[in-house]
Amino acid sequence: MRAPRAALVCVGSELLAGQVNTHQAWLSVRLRRAGFTVVGEESCPDEVERISAAMRRALSSADAVVVCGGLGPTFDDLTREAAARALGRGLRFRPALWRGILRRFARYRLSVPEENKRQAMVISGARVLANPNGSAPGQLLRAGGRSLVLLPGPPSEMYPMFEKVLPELARAHARGVCPASFSVRLSGVPESTADEKLDPVRARWPKAEFTILASGGEVSFHATARASSAAEARALRARLRREILAAVGSFAHGEGDATLESALGARLKKKRLTLGAAESCTGGLFGARVTAVPGSSRYFLGAIVSYANEVKIKQLGVPRGIIARHGAVSAECAAALAAGVRRRLGADMGVSITGVAGPGGGTKDKPVGLVFIAVSGPGRARSGKRLEINGPREAVRGRAVTAALRLAFDAAA
Amino acid sequence: MRAPRAALVCVGSELLAGQVNTHQAWLSVRLRRAGFTVVGEESCPDEVERISAAMRRALSSADAVVVCGGLGPTFDDLTREAAARALGRGLRFRPALWRGILRRFARYRLSVPEENKRQAMVISGARVLANPNGSAPGQLLRAGGRSLVLLPGPPSEMYPMFEKVLPELARAHARGVCPASFSVRLSGVPESTADEKLDPVRARWPKAEFTILASGGEVSFHATARASSAAEARALRARLRREILAAVGSFAHGEGDATLESALGARLKKKRLTLGAAESCTGGLFGARVTAVPGSSRYFLGAIVSYANEVKIKQLGVPRGIIARHGAVSAECAAALAAGVRRRLGADMGVSITGVAGPGGGTKDKPVGLVFIAVSGPGRARSGKRLEINGPREAVRGRAVTAALRLAFDAAA
Repeated sequence: MRAPRAALVCVGSELLAGQVNTHQAWLSVRLRRAGFTVVGEESCPDEVERISAAMRRALSSADAVVVCGGLGPTFDDLTREAAARALGRGLRFRPALWRGILRRFARYRLSVPEENKRQAMVISGARVLANPNGSAPGQLLRAGGRSLVLLPGPPSEMYPMFEKVLPELARAHARGVCPASFSVRLSGVPESTADEKLDPVRARWPKAEFTILASGGEVSFHATARASSAAEARALRARLRREILAAVGSFAHGEGDATLESALGARLKKKRLTLGAAESCTGGLFGARVTAVPGSSRYFLGAIVSYANEVKIKQLGVPRGIIARHGAVSAECAAALAAGVRRRLGADMGVSITGVAGPGGGTKDKPVGLVFIAVSGPGRARSGKRLEINGPREAVRGRAVTAALRLAFDAAA
Repeated sequence: MRAPRAALVCVGSELLAGQVNTHQAWLSVRLRRAGFTVVGEESCPDEVERISAAMRRALSSADAVVVCGGLGPTFDDLTREAAARALGRGLRFRPALWRGILRRFARYRLSVPEENKRQAMVISGARVLANPNGSAPGQLLRAGGRSLVLLPGPPSEMYPMFEKVLPELARAHARGVCPASFSVRLSGVPESTADEKLDPVRARWPKAEFTILASGGEVSFHATARASSAAEARALRARLRREILAAVGSFAHGEGDATLESALGARLKKKRLTLGAAESCTGGLFGARVTAVPGSSRYFLGAIVSYANEVKIKQLGVPRGIIARHGAVSAECAAALAAGVRRRLGADMGVSITGVAGPGGGTKDKPVGLVFIAVSGPGRARSGKRLEINGPREAVRGRAVTAALRLAFDAAA
C-alpha cells in the first residue's frame, strides 16, 4: 500500500526575492493529513519556460501536483500558459466564465480592465474551480492518471479552494488506501524528550509515517497510518490516538491544529475564569497571542506591559523593596506582578513574565535568557517557574510566552 | 552584462511536512543584493537521490548553488553524500576536522556520539567552511566554473557562514559586474500607490532589476543596477538612492532592512521622547513590535492592553460617557485612550488602537476591519486616523499596528 504522492509548484518571482513562502508548509500539512506523501516543492520565477519545466518534473514524480500563484490578470501571470504547454494542450476563452468575472466586478462597482480576460482562459479538458473570494478561477486537470491543480496565490482565495478540492484529490489517488491521521500538540516539554516518549509508539507502527516539529517552545507530532477501508481507518486512528496520548500524557494541550492559546481559552471559558497579564520583557507578546484567538474578549480582560520599573511600581503595585532587593528579573518580582495585575484588573487569574531578552542587558547573575514567569489564582493557587532560554531575542521572548501560556493552562485545570 | 545566477536547494523532510521554509527568503534577499538573480528553489526530502537530482538541476541553470540543511550527524543527514554523487566525486574522512569536532564537544564537557564522524567527511576538492556556532562544518566546491555551497540548517549556524562566503561567491561569478543595490522601506502608503510613484524610476533604469514586496502594511522596494567597476557602482547606487527617495518622498521610513519599529525607536531616542501605548483589538501586538527592537527600554515605558471596557475606564481614565455615546470603537475613544495612557504612564507620547478585528463582533455601523488609531503628544500635538482594513483577523491587527507605528513616527518628527 504505497501512499499516493504529491508535489508542489509555487509560482512568483517574489518568492525568489524575499517573500516568505508560507504556502509550502500550509499545503504540505493538509496533503499529509489526507494521506499523501509530499515528495518535493519548487519555487519558480514568473517565466513560462521555468514554470512549465517544473510542472513536468512534478508530474513525473507525483500523482497530484498542486500549483499556486500566477493566475492573476497581468502579463506576469503565466501559470495558465505554462500548464497548457506542460501538458501540450490548448487554452480556450470561456465566455460564461468571463460574464461571471464581469458580474463580480459590477457588484463592487468597479470597471474591468481588458487584461482580466486572461482569467477566463481555460486549459482544454480542465474543470474550473470557482473562486468566491477573488476574480481568478482555479483549474483542475487530469492527465495520464495524474492530477494537476492550479490555485490562485492569495491565501484568502487559495485556502478555501484547496480545502474544497482536496477530498476529491485524495479519492482520485487513494489506490484503495484510506489514511488514518492523528496530530497532537505538546508544550512544557523539550522536543528531544517528546521524541523519546514517542519512540515506543513509532516502534509499534513500523509502516506508519511520523513527523515531529518544534517551534517556539511547542512541539507538534503527526502520525499517518494507512488502512484499506474507512472502517479500518477509523479503528486505526482511534488506536493511534490512544497510544500517542498515553505516551505524551499531560504534555498534550490539544489535538489537530489546537494552539496553546486556543486550548487555554477553551479551558478558561469552560471554567468561567477571567485572565489578566503583566508583561515586562515580552512587551505585549503574551496578550497578542491570547487575543489572536477570536472571541478571547470573553475571558481576557487585558494586560499591563510594564517595561519601565516605575510602571511596575505605580501601575501594578510591585513594592519598591522587591525591585531594590531582588531586581525586576526575579521570582519575587514575577509573583508580585502576577498578583498585582490580577488585583488591578479584577481578574480571576493573573499571569506575569519578567526576564532578560537580550542581546544586551545580561549580567553574570542575570544572564540573557533568564526569565521568571508566575501565575496568581484562581483562588489561592500560586505557581511560578524559572526559565533559562538559549537563543536570540525573538526566541527568548517567544518561548517565554509559550511557557507562561502553559503555566496558565495548567493553573486553570 | 548578464547577472550571475543563483539557485537554492533546501534539504529536509520537515520542509514538506509543515515547517515553514524561511531560508529561501533570507538567502534570496542577500543573493540579490550581492548582484545575483535567483532563478529557482527546490525543497527536497531526506532522500539522497532526490537531493542529488535537485543539485544537478540547479547546477545546470545557475552559476552558484546554495544548499542548506542535511549536514547533521544522523542517518538522515544526506547532503554530503548527495553532493558527492551529483558531482561524481568521493568523500574522504578528514582526521584534523574530526579532532576539531572532538575539541568542541570537550569544551562543553559532552561525550561525542560515534555517528558524528560523518561530519568530518569532506567531498574531494571541497574547501571546509568553519562553523563557530555548531558541529557541522560547511563545504564550498568549484566544478566546471560553478560553485556549490553546502550550509548547515540551523539559522544561527547558517546565517554567519553564508554572510562570510557570499562576497567570495559574488567575486567568483561577477563576470566583471559590480552590483549597485539600494533598498528602501515604506509605510503609510498602499503597494499600488508606491508602485505608481516608482514607475518613472523603473522607466529611467531599463537594465536594472526591481522588486516591490508588500507585507502587513509595509512596502519594501529593492533595486539592483550593474556597473563594471566599484567606483561606477558607488556612483550608480548614489543616483538610484537619490531618485528612489525623491519618488517616494516621506513615505520612506528607512533604508536597507530598517523596520518601522526601529525607525520609530531611532527617532524617539534622538528626540529624547518616551512612549506609552493603549491597545484594544491588537491585544499587545503594538508593544510587542516596539519592544522587538533591542534597547527599546530607553524610550518605551509600557502599554496598557484594555481588552475589556472596564479596563479602558478604570486603568486609562476613558470617560464612561464616551463609550456610552460613541462606543469603544470610535475616534473619540481612541483619542481618550491615547491621552489616558500618556497621563497614566507619564510618557511624552501616547498611542492608541481600538477596532473590530473580527471575524465576529462587526455591525453595520462598525464593520469588521474598522479601526481607530490616535496619538497624543509630544506637547499639544494630537493626531488620529480612521482605518478600514480588509482581511482576516491577523491582517486587521497587523496592519492596524503598522498604521499606529507610522502615526507615532510622523508625530515624533
